[in-house]
Amino acid sequence: MKALVLVAHGSRREASNDEIRELAQAMARRNSDFDKIYPGFLELAEPSIPDAIRTAAADGANDIIVMPYFLSAGRHVVKDIPAEVDSVRDELSNIPIRLAPYLGQADELIDILFNQAESSS
Amino acid sequence: MKALVLVAHGSRREASNDEIRELAQAMARRNSDFDKIYPGFLELAEPSIPDAIRTAAADGANDIIVMPYFLSAGRHVVKDIPAEVDSVRDELSNIPIRLAPYLGQADELIDILFNQAESSS
Repeated sequence: MKALVLVAHGSRREASNDEIRELAQAMARRNSDFDKIYPGFLELAEPSIPDAIRTAAADGANDIIVMPYFLSAGRHVVKDIPAEVDSVRDELSNIPIRLAPYLGQADELIDILFNQAESSS
Repeated sequence: MKALVLVAHGSRREASNDEIRELAQAMARRNSDFDKIYPGFLELAEPSIPDAIRTAAADGANDIIVMPYFLSAGRHVVKDIPAEVDSVRDELSNIPIRLAPYLGQADELIDILFNQAESSS
């Protein structure tokens, strides 16, 4: 079972956290390489990144990809998220857990930006 | 002349601000409906949103689209950015200035997320 953990920062504003949970659900409804999609939060919301990974493992995942839903490579992307992921590697040493590039690195973002801008012009 | 103002939050980390400036430059190199692309920052970096809009107007823009490069509809997207845009409307009353949906509203984000995730799996 292949799992994707979609990582957001987490917010004091619960509606923002729900946006991420709904995005994970919308992704789960799509056909993709992934059998299950789990939201995970760096701080201020639940589940934490380690807990999301643990849940994926408990559900039977034998391949886990963690992707930061972030636009820029700040400290959270460069240090904090990798550290959270590393914190469960020993505990789940039989399951490969890989970090995907953060969203902001995707070249296709430019196409989306133009689509959004042109649709309102 | 049609202008796009790409609005980011702004960061104390200048490398993050440069990422946005480079994104605006990369967009400018693409063929699109827009003749010029301007970065603008809500806080912590220059130019401000009003200054970016003023520069577009001074460059001859007669149609300006402002797009929030944000993933969620927090206070910045809902209130602060529209207020910054409104602050120059009287001054530039002969130029239409429109707000595009924020990036996070784009349906195509899901495709990008899967592409990123699958490329690392």
